Amino acid sequence: MVYQDEIEIQTSGHKDMHNITTAVAECVKNSGITSGIVNIFNIGSTAIIGTIEYEAGLEHDLPELLDKLAPPSRTYGHEQAWHDGNGHSHLQASMMGPGITVPFNNSHLLLGTWQQIFHLECDIKPRKRTLILTVIG
Amino acid sequence: MVYQDEIEIQTSGHKDMHNITTAVAECVKNSGITSGIVNIFNIGSTAIIGTIEYEAGLEHDLPELLDKLAPPSRTYGHEQAWHDGNGHSHLQASMMGPGITVPFNNSHLLLGTWQQIFHLECDIKPRKRTLILTVIG
Amino acid sequence: MVYQDEIEIQTSGHKDMHNITTAVAECVKNSGITSGIVNIFNIGSTAIIGTIEYEAGLEHDLPELLDKLAPPSRTYGHEQAWHDGNGHSHLQASMMGPGITVPFNNSHLLLGTWQQIFHLECDIKPRKRTLILTVIG
Repeated sequence: MVYQDEIEIQTSGHKDMHNITTAVAECVKNSGITSGIVNIFNIGSTAIIGTIEYEAGLEHDLPELLDKLAPPSRTYGHEQAWHDGNGHSHLQASMMGPGITVPFNNSHLLLGTWQQIFHLECDIKPRKRTLILTVIG
Repeated sequence: MVYQDEIEIQTSGHKDMHNITTAVAECVKNSGITSGIVNIFNIGSTAIIGTIEYEAGLEHDLPELLDKLAPPSRTYGHEQAWHDGNGHSHLQASMMGPGITVPFNNSHLLLGTWQQIFHLECDIKPRKRTLILTVIG
Repeated sequence: MVYQDEIEIQTSGHKDMHNITTAVAECVKNSGITSGIVNIFNIGSTAIIGTIEYEAGLEHDLPELLDKLAPPSRTYGHEQAWHDGNGHSHLQASMMGPGITVPFNNSHLLLGTWQQIFHLECDIKPRKRTLILTVIG
C-alpha cells in the first residue's frame, strides 16, 4: 500500500530550521498503514531533511557547522555562472541530502525520544517549500 | 509485502564501529521477500548507518575525519544548554544520517564485494542501540 | 508492486559527475507504477548518488569541496594497509552516501525544476558502475 501527501513550509531564509515530526506522524496516521516506512523529500536543491535532537542549541550549531564546511562565498563556480549568491546553499544541501526515510510500527514513528525530523532552509532568501511524504507498508 | 525486525548492538562509545552486513542479509532472508529494498535505521540521534569498505584502516579514518569536521568541543550551543559533552556526537550523526536503504534481488543484498553496511557510535559513552530493519518488496 | 532495473555508467575517474535524471525517469515510466518511490543505489564503496542543480559551476564545486573536506592523502589508515591511493575516495563516498530515494506521482519524478539526480565518481581511476533502480508503489 502507498499513500502520498505533501506539507508546505514557509521559511525565512538561510539557517531557518523547522521541526516537522508532528506533521509526518500525522500523515502516517492518516495513511491508515500500520507498519512500514515513510520517505520525506524536499522538492528543490537548496534545503535539507534529516534527524536531530531538536533543541535551540543544535538548531544554532548545525547551520553554523555547515557554514564552516561550505562557507558563503563569491568564488564558487556556481557564482561565476549565475551571480545569485547561493553557491554554498547548493553545496550544503547536496552534501546533507534532500530527504530521509523513517520506519514506523503500530502507526508510530520509530524515533528516539530525543530524535526529531527537521527541515533546514539553506537558500539565502525566504522560500515556500513543498515536502512530499510517501508512506509505504 | 513488508517485514520488520530489529537488531540490538552494544557499543563501547565514541568511534566504535560495527559491521552489520551479515545481520541485515539474514533479516532479508528471513523475510521471505525475494526482491526489493531494506531500510536500516538507528533509533536515536547520535549514531550513524552507512556503507563503507569495512577494514581496519577506514574503521579508523572515518571517525577521525568526522572529529576533524565536527570536533569535540565545549563551545557548541548544545553544550551551553545541556552540559553533556556530546554536541559533536549530535552534529556528526545529523550530518551523516541515521539510516540507509539498500536494494536486494534473489534474496541477496546488491552490495559491492568491498562494500559493507556499518553502524558508527558517535555518543561519548557506551550505548545499547536498537536498529529497525524494514524489508519491502 | 516492485520493479527493479539497472543502469551502467562508464566514468573517467575522480570528480567525474553524471546527470542520471533522464535514465531514472525512464525507469519509473517503464515500471508502469504511477505513484511511489524510486531508490537509486551505486554498487561499490567509492561513488555517490545525490541531488544537485546540475550545471557546470556546481559540477566543479561539489567535488572540489569534497577534496577540501577529505583531501587526497597518503596518511590515511586505509592507505597504510592497501597502498591504492584512494583513501579519500572511500571517505568522500561514505560521507555522502551511495544512494538516494526520490518520490514520484503520475509517473513523474517529484523533483524541483533545478534539481537533478547525479552520480559522482570518487575513485581515482575510470570505473564501470552498475546502479540499481528499485521502483516501489
